[in-house]
Amino acid sequence: MSTDNIVRHLLTRNDEIIDRLCSFLRMPSVSTDSAYVQGMRDAQSFLLDWLTQMGLSNVQLLDGGGHPAVYGDWNGAPGRPTVIIYGHYDVMPPDPLEAWVSPPFEPTIRNGRLYARGASDVKGSTVIALETIAAFLKVRGCCPVNIKIFLEGEEESGSPSLRTIVRRYGSLLRADAMISADGGRVSPVVPTINVGSRGLVELEFSIRTADKDLHSGRYGGAVRNATHEMARIISSLHDERGAIAIPELMALVPPLSNEARAQTAKLAFDEAQFVSEVGAQAYGEPSFSVREQLTLRPSLDVNGMWGGYIGPGAKTIVPNSAHAKLSLRIVPGQDPDRAFGALKSHLLAACSPGVNMAIEDLGSGSPAFSLPTRHPLVLAAQKVLLEMTGQESVLVRLGATVPITAIFHDMLGVQTLMFGFNLPDEDVHAPNEFFYLASLAQGLSAWPRLLEELGKLDADEFQFMTRDAEKTSI
Amino acid sequence: MSTDNIVRHLLTRNDEIIDRLCSFLRMPSVSTDSAYVQGMRDAQSFLLDWLTQMGLSNVQLLDGGGHPAVYGDWNGAPGRPTVIIYGHYDVMPPDPLEAWVSPPFEPTIRNGRLYARGASDVKGSTVIALETIAAFLKVRGCCPVNIKIFLEGEEESGSPSLRTIVRRYGSLLRADAMISADGGRVSPVVPTINVGSRGLVELEFSIRTADKDLHSGRYGGAVRNATHEMARIISSLHDERGAIAIPELMALVPPLSNEARAQTAKLAFDEAQFVSEVGAQAYGEPSFSVREQLTLRPSLDVNGMWGGYIGPGAKTIVPNSAHAKLSLRIVPGQDPDRAFGALKSHLLAACSPGVNMAIEDLGSGSPAFSLPTRHPLVLAAQKVLLEMTGQESVLVRLGATVPITAIFHDMLGVQTLMFGFNLPDEDVHAPNEFFYLASLAQGLSAWPRLLEELGKLDADEFQFMTRDAEKTSI
Repeated sequence: MSTDNIVRHLLTRNDEIIDRLCSFLRMPSVSTDSAYVQGMRDAQSFLLDWLTQMGLSNVQLLDGGGHPAVYGDWNGAPGRPTVIIYGHYDVMPPDPLEAWVSPPFEPTIRNGRLYARGASDVKGSTVIALETIAAFLKVRGCCPVNIKIFLEGEEESGSPSLRTIVRRYGSLLRADAMISADGGRVSPVVPTINVGSRGLVELEFSIRTADKDLHSGRYGGAVRNATHEMARIISSLHDERGAIAIPELMALVPPLSNEARAQTAKLAFDEAQFVSEVGAQAYGEPSFSVREQLTLRPSLDVNGMWGGYIGPGAKTIVPNSAHAKLSLRIVPGQDPDRAFGALKSHLLAACSPGVNMAIEDLGSGSPAFSLPTRHPLVLAAQKVLLEMTGQESVLVRLGATVPITAIFHDMLGVQTLMFGFNLPDEDVHAPNEFFYLASLAQGLSAWPRLLEELGKLDADEFQFMTRDAEKTSI
Repeated sequence: MSTDNIVRHLLTRNDEIIDRLCSFLRMPSVSTDSAYVQGMRDAQSFLLDWLTQMGLSNVQLLDGGGHPAVYGDWNGAPGRPTVIIYGHYDVMPPDPLEAWVSPPFEPTIRNGRLYARGASDVKGSTVIALETIAAFLKVRGCCPVNIKIFLEGEEESGSPSLRTIVRRYGSLLRADAMISADGGRVSPVVPTINVGSRGLVELEFSIRTADKDLHSGRYGGAVRNATHEMARIISSLHDERGAIAIPELMALVPPLSNEARAQTAKLAFDEAQFVSEVGAQAYGEPSFSVREQLTLRPSLDVNGMWGGYIGPGAKTIVPNSAHAKLSLRIVPGQDPDRAFGALKSHLLAACSPGVNMAIEDLGSGSPAFSLPTRHPLVLAAQKVLLEMTGQESVLVRLGATVPITAIFHDMLGVQTLMFGFNLPDEDVHAPNEFFYLASLAQGLSAWPRLLEELGKLDADEFQFMTRDAEKTSI
C-alpha cells in the first residue's frame, strides 16, 4: 500500500479542508475567559461529531474538573504501535480587538495567509492531524498504527486539570508514543525536528523597607527606598554583558556538547534580523550564538517589576515595597527545585540587611525535556522529511517550555514528537495571528508518511528501539 | 494694651473653639475628588459666614478657574504692616477608609488627640489663626496689623489655579508679609522657626527595548529586557552608600554653612527612633546627620517604577518597556532648570545604546525657599517663642517643598513665616490623622503675641528691615 493515494486524496480536497478549518476557527474557544463558554462548547461538539463521523471509537469528553479534553480512538492495527495524537482546541483571548485587521473569529485569507485567532496555535496543525486520520480511514479503511486522539481544552490556561485527566483516564491513554500537532517548525525551508525544550522555574518576590510609603519631603535622603533596593537586586542577577551572574545556578549547567553546537550551527539563522524584526537589542551571554542562547543555555528574565506610585502625574513618596516576577528557563541537567533554590539563595543574599524579603513559587517547576535523538519517532520523522525535501533534518531544541511533554513522559512513560506545521512569525498570542496556507499542503503530505513509517514497526520493536535510544540527546 | 486679655479670652473659650473646629472638620472638603464637591461648598460657606461675622470686609471667593480661595480683610490699622494670613480649607482624600478607627469626617477625641481628616493638615492651625483675628476684633475692636485672610481650596491638589488667582487679584493681595498656618512644628518641646524648605524637580521617564513584549521562551537570553535596563539605570543614581551619584548635579550644591550645621545640631533629634518608628532603614549620604540629610542636602527618590506584567500569576514575557517617576529635592543654590538638566543628562548617558528613552517633566520645578534669618517676621517669632517657652528658638529648614512660599515671593514680593502648630507625628495624608489638643492652647497663646509684635513696627520700618535682612539665611 502506498501513502501516495492518501496524500493525493488530501491535497485534492484542499478547499474542503480549508472550509472545515474555517468552521473550527469561527468558534471562539477561549478557555481563559468564561464569557466564551459557548465557543468552547461549540468546539467540543464540532470535534465530537467529526471524530465520530470519521469512524473513531470511544468518542467522548474526558473530564478533569475544568474544560474537558476531546477523545476518540481507533484500535484496528493489532501488533502495531499505539500513538496518541495531541492537539488543543482552545485559543488565546483575542485582545486587543482593535488591533486586528479582520475580526479574530472571522477567518480571512489575505496573501496566502489564513488570519484568525487559533489559526497557527493550533487549530491549523490540529486539523492536519485529524484530516490525516480521516483520510486513512476513508481511503484505506484503516490506519498504519493504532490511534488515540487527545485534544486538550486548557492548554492556553496552563493546563490546570491535565494531570487529573491523565490520572483519571490513564488506562484509556496507554500508548507507545505521542505525536503533537503543537510545537511547530523553526524555518520554512530547512526541515527541523524538535528534540527538546527548556524547563521553567517561576517566582515572585517582594521587598519591604518600611511600614508604609513615606513622604519624600519628610524622609527622602535618609531612609532606604524599596524601588532603589529592588533595582539593585535586579541588577545583581546579570553581569554587564547580560550573562546570568549567579554562580550556584550556573554550576549546575553542563557544558554544551559538540553535537548540540554542530546541530544548532546547521540551521541558517539571521541573528541580526531575528532581533531587529521586533525592534529589539541583541544582548546576553557572549561566546554563544543567539540560537545557542535561546535554546541551549538557561535564561533569566524579569517578567514584571513594580513599586510605589504608578498612576498618572506625580506623587512624592519614598515607596516602602517593591515586587518582581522572574522566570528562569532551565536546560537538561538543571533540576527545577535546585535551580529555584539557587535563585532564592541569591535573592536573599542580595537583599540588604534589615530589608524584608518574601519569595513565592509561582509554579511547580518544569524540567527541560529531551526526546532521544535515536528514538523511533525521530528516525521516522527524519526519513519522511528527507524524502519530502531532499534535505537532512536539523535537530533543534525549543527555547520555550512545553509542559505536556513532561506530563505525558512522567505519568504515561511516553515520549513526544512535536510535528506541528506552524512557523515562528505567525503572531501567535498576538493580534492578526495567521497560518500560512502553504503549510497546510506540507503538513498533509508529511503526516500520512510519518504514520506510515511508524506502522512499519511492530509494537515490541518500537519499545526495544525506544529503550535503546535512552540517553541519546543533544 | 496688653495681649494677655486676648489670649485669656481665647483660652477660656477653648470648648467653643473645639466645637467650631469640629464643625469645620465634619465638612468633607476633599479638593481632588469631585464626589466631595458639596463638602467643598459647605466649607466655603462656613468660612464666608465666619469671616463676615467676625467683622472682616471684602469677604468673597477668589476664583481662578478651580476651587476658589476664601478671602476677607481688615484694614483698620493705617501705617502698620499688612499681613496675609494663609491657610487652606481643603483636605486629602480619606482613603483607605477601613483603616480609620473612627470615621474621618466624624471628629473624635481620644487621649488628648482630635482625630479627623484635616485636623492636622491644616484646619486645626487655620482655626487658631482665624480665632486670633476674631478675638482681637471682638475684645479690642481692632487688630495690631492690617489683615488679609487668604484660604486656599486646592493645596492638596497641587494648587493648579493659585497663580491665576494671585495674578487676577494681585492688587487685593498686596501686603508686606505672609504668615502661614500651614507648615508646622518640628518638636513639641523645642521651639523652632522654619526658615526655608527644599525645592522640587519631578520627572517621569520611559525606556523601550523592543516593539512589543516578547515571549521569554522564544527570545529570553538573547535580547535586552527593559526591566533589567531600568534596574541598571536606577542603580546608577546612587552609590552603594545611598549618596546621589550624579557629579553634575551635586556640583551645584554649595557646602553647608557652619551656622546651618550648628542650628541643625541644636535640635535634639533621635535619629534611630525617627527611622525605626516607621519600620524604615537608615540610609543615605554618610558624613551628614539625618536632619542634615533631610533638610540641608538634596535627595533623589524613585517614587514609582514599573514594567512588564504586574497582574496576578505568571506571564512569561520579556518586557519591552519600563517606566519610573523621580522626585529630586533641591537646596538653595540649585536652580530647578539646571538640576533637571543634570538629571536628564545623567539618565540619557546611563541608557544603553539602542535603547529608546523618553523623559517628561512632571512639573514646572520649584526652587528651594529661604526666609532671611534677620527678617522682621523671624525676629518677631523668636521674641514671642522666647517669652512663651523661655528657650531660644532653633532655626530649621523643612525637607519638604512648600510651593506657595515661592509663588507669593515671586508674584507678590512677600516673604512667608510658617507658623502652624501641627506636629510631625500626626499622620498627615494617612488614616487616623489627628491634632494634639494641647497644640490648640499653644497656638492660641502664640498667634496674638506674634501679631502684636509685628504691630509694633510701622510699615516703612517693616520694609526697611525686610530689605536689610536680604541674604541672611541658613
